[in-house]
Amino acid sequence: MLKEITGGICAAAGFKAGAVRAGIKATSPKDKPDIAIIFSENRATAAAVYTTNKVKGAPLLVTKEHLRDGKCQAVIVNSGNANTCNANGIEIAVGACRLTAEALGIEPGDVAVASTGVIGQPMSIVPFEKHIPALAKSLRHSPDASREVVRAIMTTDTREKSAAFEFSLSGSENEKICRIGGISKGSGMIAPNMATMLCFITTDVNITESCLHEALLTANRKTFNQVSVDRDTSTNDTVLIMASGLAGNDVIDDTKSRSYAVFLENLYGVMRHLARETARDGEGATKLIECRVTGALTERTAAVIAKSVVESNLLKAAIFAADANWGRILCAIGYADADFDINKVDVVISSEAGSVKVCENAAGTSFRDEDAHNVLLADEILITVNLFGGGAEAFAWGCDLTYDYVKINAEYRT
Amino acid sequence: MLKEITGGICAAAGFKAGAVRAGIKATSPKDKPDIAIIFSENRATAAAVYTTNKVKGAPLLVTKEHLRDGKCQAVIVNSGNANTCNANGIEIAVGACRLTAEALGIEPGDVAVASTGVIGQPMSIVPFEKHIPALAKSLRHSPDASREVVRAIMTTDTREKSAAFEFSLSGSENEKICRIGGISKGSGMIAPNMATMLCFITTDVNITESCLHEALLTANRKTFNQVSVDRDTSTNDTVLIMASGLAGNDVIDDTKSRSYAVFLENLYGVMRHLARETARDGEGATKLIECRVTGALTERTAAVIAKSVVESNLLKAAIFAADANWGRILCAIGYADADFDINKVDVVISSEAGSVKVCENAAGTSFRDEDAHNVLLADEILITVNLFGGGAEAFAWGCDLTYDYVKINAEYRT
Repeated sequence: MLKEITGGICAAAGFKAGAVRAGIKATSPKDKPDIAIIFSENRATAAAVYTTNKVKGAPLLVTKEHLRDGKCQAVIVNSGNANTCNANGIEIAVGACRLTAEALGIEPGDVAVASTGVIGQPMSIVPFEKHIPALAKSLRHSPDASREVVRAIMTTDTREKSAAFEFSLSGSENEKICRIGGISKGSGMIAPNMATMLCFITTDVNITESCLHEALLTANRKTFNQVSVDRDTSTNDTVLIMASGLAGNDVIDDTKSRSYAVFLENLYGVMRHLARETARDGEGATKLIECRVTGALTERTAAVIAKSVVESNLLKAAIFAADANWGRILCAIGYADADFDINKVDVVISSEAGSVKVCENAAGTSFRDEDAHNVLLADEILITVNLFGGGAEAFAWGCDLTYDYVKINAEYRT
Repeated sequence: MLKEITGGICAAAGFKAGAVRAGIKATSPKDKPDIAIIFSENRATAAAVYTTNKVKGAPLLVTKEHLRDGKCQAVIVNSGNANTCNANGIEIAVGACRLTAEALGIEPGDVAVASTGVIGQPMSIVPFEKHIPALAKSLRHSPDASREVVRAIMTTDTREKSAAFEFSLSGSENEKICRIGGISKGSGMIAPNMATMLCFITTDVNITESCLHEALLTANRKTFNQVSVDRDTSTNDTVLIMASGLAGNDVIDDTKSRSYAVFLENLYGVMRHLARETARDGEGATKLIECRVTGALTERTAAVIAKSVVESNLLKAAIFAADANWGRILCAIGYADADFDINKVDVVISSEAGSVKVCENAAGTSFRDEDAHNVLLADEILITVNLFGGGAEAFAWGCDLTYDYVKINAEYRT
């Protein structure tokens, strides 16, 4: 049972944040910040996962290099320009780290950098030079500061995405309290292997770098890697976690320990929440589609099928219209690259409005169209697929395909 | 150089066709035929390729069985109901073959059956019983008859898709003239590995079953398997070819012979034309997008990258708006599952309005947005990607993503 708290990336001890409008994209709203800093009072243990796209934004390359020693003390992040496929991309990314380090009095190699926005647009260091010094002075340890950063990294996002939990590693009342919190952005170009374009997580847990990295990979596989808005894998996807150790717990140094399991559960909780919110906020989306595949021989089989269902454009368009065109669900299950017996498959659709079994043993049931339509009118739809072939399960998250998805992406640059 | 002729599936000697309205889908236009027969005067040599989806329509299973001896004399095809995921699917498919065979005086095992339409809807044999006898009597060897069949198999299609060529196998003037023609339907649920839901090809060439099958696989790999409208692989995809042998040529029995090469070139010509038209007629499409990848180490690398580009929802939406958001092209190249050096990649967009190099060595060029916009205003766009890594090339075809795609698929069943 997770215990939710407020504060986002400022929930954990030792972290400050802040954001400012630097005008990186001239046409963005005048009251929207677009440069933000996340700062750890000490050199935090850090780990990150990045896009699998061969085209990688310059900020990723610089961040990867700076995180090689498993330490990070600050993140400088901007929206409005992805700083990708620019001739001077590395120069800008390195420059942003240097300016941040100078303003904070830390090492440039302890600064991570991330950017989101249009690809292939020339970028200038000037907005960073002008605004980082004041921004660095304004950092605060407060929920408001976390919200400012959330707003700074939004592009086509319509919702602020943030989550935080507190927990004790032993379960006893006297144990030190630990906290973990995260924020994310991402709405389009959301697909296979890392869905959010950017996600930052902070925790005050004391943990080794290898345990932190392992936990991040595990939670990421089950969360952001199972989200798809449009199957397009961005060039800039980054999930970065910093652990300050200020909770004062005995160090977590064994992935088989109870304390590691508790930490992983809370990390998974943060990332699952953010992954779901990312899917819900898919470009133009009106509904969250969650697919749960059970009875699979392996988790991979379940994961592949769940992803295939939430990725089907045809199904996504049908769900937009609350049309229980279950043949499209079965079709998407059928072309998933996994081994299972299609003839045993059951499919149930459900929401707060009820639950309808639409398909049994791969054939349609005699459900009433009206009942299924009512289920699909809700704004959160669960599609449960039972393979009756084993004990493994997995989830995936997506959203409906709407006129607004087309509108947003046809007019993104104008 | 291919020589185009008229006649579609009635171009080749020995083939008759016809269609009638049987009212399989009550809401379809009253003047639209929905059951058709293609008939060969003799038992034709036949080959087919089918969907890779694990969910296969009942008609496919029956057709596969009937084609096991490499012979086929008639095809019965309907639109309005895919006869897939119905409890009585096999019974209906077998029944349709039996009725057709009785009406034509041939063996049921020499009849292929195909269906397209909604999945998982109950289906009745009655329309077949009522209309096949008269339909069988009305078959004609004429271009009009071929057009009737084309119209009968259309669902959300907006264009009639048909092509035919004539050729001599030796190239000499005195050689017997051979003909090949094909028709297809398919507009949505068009994706990896077989794009058209249905394609029928007839030829009067005299050819062995194994050479016919090999030629079909080769041409299919380079054509329909490289088309994607929405990445959804249908349950009913079928490409079927019948060769009557009535041209009277010396039998083609060697895939290394000149005559085989000439036949393959013409078969490829028919299928390439139909594949392109299928992409152009993608649901809601306003533009055909052709991607040509050159300089690849292998044909597979080129094919995978070309497919990845035409499948990107983000790029498809940008092209709809004639927006030269080339970063999305590079992004789609970058997540293609293939080995190549992303840093060498050049991208050129072109159309009847001109040609603009938008990306060189994976970075943006200083092209004028207005020039690129003008290129993209055309209704046929070519994206040329040069990998500078070898001598292989491949094509893929897709279409833009529009409001109408969403509209068509949100309201398909209503």
